[in-house]
Amino acid sequence: MTGEAYRAAGVDIDAANEAKRRIADQARSTFTSGVLGDIGGFGSLFRPTGYRDPVLVSHIDNVGTKLRVAALMGRYDTVGEDLVNHCVNDILTCGAAPLFFLDYIGMGEISPATAESLMSGMVRACREIGCALVGGETAELPGLYRPGNLDLVGFVVGAVERDRLIDGESVRAGDTLLGVPSSGLHTNGFSLVRRLFNIDDNPAVLAESFPGLDATLGETLLTPHRGYVRVLEPVMDRLKAMAHITGGGLLENVPRVLPDGLGARFDTATWTPPAIFRLVREWGEIGDREMFRVFNMGVGMVLAVARDDVPAVLEAIPDAWVAGEVISVEGSERVTLA
Amino acid sequence: MTGEAYRAAGVDIDAANEAKRRIADQARSTFTSGVLGDIGGFGSLFRPTGYRDPVLVSHIDNVGTKLRVAALMGRYDTVGEDLVNHCVNDILTCGAAPLFFLDYIGMGEISPATAESLMSGMVRACREIGCALVGGETAELPGLYRPGNLDLVGFVVGAVERDRLIDGESVRAGDTLLGVPSSGLHTNGFSLVRRLFNIDDNPAVLAESFPGLDATLGETLLTPHRGYVRVLEPVMDRLKAMAHITGGGLLENVPRVLPDGLGARFDTATWTPPAIFRLVREWGEIGDREMFRVFNMGVGMVLAVARDDVPAVLEAIPDAWVAGEVISVEGSERVTLA
Repeated sequence: MTGEAYRAAGVDIDAANEAKRRIADQARSTFTSGVLGDIGGFGSLFRPTGYRDPVLVSHIDNVGTKLRVAALMGRYDTVGEDLVNHCVNDILTCGAAPLFFLDYIGMGEISPATAESLMSGMVRACREIGCALVGGETAELPGLYRPGNLDLVGFVVGAVERDRLIDGESVRAGDTLLGVPSSGLHTNGFSLVRRLFNIDDNPAVLAESFPGLDATLGETLLTPHRGYVRVLEPVMDRLKAMAHITGGGLLENVPRVLPDGLGARFDTATWTPPAIFRLVREWGEIGDREMFRVFNMGVGMVLAVARDDVPAVLEAIPDAWVAGEVISVEGSERVTLA
Repeated sequence: MTGEAYRAAGVDIDAANEAKRRIADQARSTFTSGVLGDIGGFGSLFRPTGYRDPVLVSHIDNVGTKLRVAALMGRYDTVGEDLVNHCVNDILTCGAAPLFFLDYIGMGEISPATAESLMSGMVRACREIGCALVGGETAELPGLYRPGNLDLVGFVVGAVERDRLIDGESVRAGDTLLGVPSSGLHTNGFSLVRRLFNIDDNPAVLAESFPGLDATLGETLLTPHRGYVRVLEPVMDRLKAMAHITGGGLLENVPRVLPDGLGARFDTATWTPPAIFRLVREWGEIGDREMFRVFNMGVGMVLAVARDDVPAVLEAIPDAWVAGEVISVEGSERVTLA
């Protein structure tokens, strides 16, 4: 075997290095004052300053098979944005401000153009919220992925003063549950949607229009996961608990942040889910309860707020609405949809 | 479509929840005093205490296509161990002690048994070094992965006092380079090895014996990536720079931690790479320089140490040896193998 042995085995170190260089240039544009050193070291360095007694809040996540839709549409920047917003929204529920983010891109064959496109979306989302993209890993893994596929994993670390940690402990029956709109499917339910519309076998369906949608199916599905950092920042002190509505929907995510013995009753007549959810429900003849278990149904975040604080929060977040209330529950069924 | 729609689309939420429960139980056994809260929240909470002016050092990585060998051998605990050690060794090069770790497992179809086996290896490695496994994500991604494959990503955050950060700045020409043995391939070069031995098409080769190997090829390849935290802890104050020898080998990893204008000369006669490297070189007729670019060649870590400190470091790390020295270089070829 020649000096090209490794390349012949499916690993192109030069292409990998080229992708890394381009990615590093983009990442540097997100650097905040806490970043020490540069991209490309063995470890990424961040010096958190200005905290008395910080709690570090971290989360690792991915964007699921929304990646399949991105691949078929040939557009990767929006899933990069999805990844950051998905991860950051999760730590936001604890009251944490994002400090730094790292990404992982695994591919069967390194495509510098794809990596760069993914990165452009991550950089856009990170800059928007003052989160530094300090490192990552782009791995070529011949044989693991189906041809043309990749996986994308994000990791975020944030911080919150220990005495301002939002942990739901102060939530009481009678507190109000506010909904904050999602922008669409965000990053959950894509395996079901792909199957319903037979997207893998008939990608042309992504270019089609459907009743109620303002854009093609593909464009609608790729709508970026909304980020809530800037939306919620002004009212953080008034929030007793926050749930990010991801896989499991309202039914599984809201109980995660409520104390034992408490549940939620949502009045589903108070909002109209975006058209994509109605389309999916009708196309797939899916029951209401399953829709609410798989999809966010138009609710991106749920905020638990004392009744007295409701007007101030609604004033600060004009598109939020009163969606339900905290109730006492017995048994395992903790979320009621009325 | 019925209430089983999501399951039929390839996403089994109940199996995912079962895997998460088992994983959470294992993860809790790694908890250290810094951990607040529990597994399963939106964010994982860690309170770093005892630092005056901490720098957070983070790294995200994977174990490459060593996963293919693990899959074919039906054994996943060792790659779990690999993942932790690979990530933690990287932040160790900055002088950082690991605080907490998170993992990501992406699969085409959730296998709770596989996830649990991966986790048992991660837990073993984390407990060994006092690193808390505080969270993770197990994702079912039908359509992205080839059947029976998965990807595994690890994320670690450590901390070091700012004035004890090891950044290579004090390295000078004439400093000694010590090698610390690897345990084998660690987690790099597997795509090449898989191709050389035609492992994907003929997995039976993994059960075969080869000249020089103490175990079967498969067992030899799965030897866990050695962790260096406990090895290097006693001598951290004497280390001017450390390179973790991963993808790119000595040729690419050592320059990453040396100041501009400095390079390394290794005397390759000072050590004997483990038999697996000789086997690979002969089997594949691979040139020496490429071997040193793809594989660690028996060197897991390289330590740059002032000559006066060499005896103390060698006494603390009995299997380390003088492997070379720091030299002044011009041009881009910074590593000489003599």
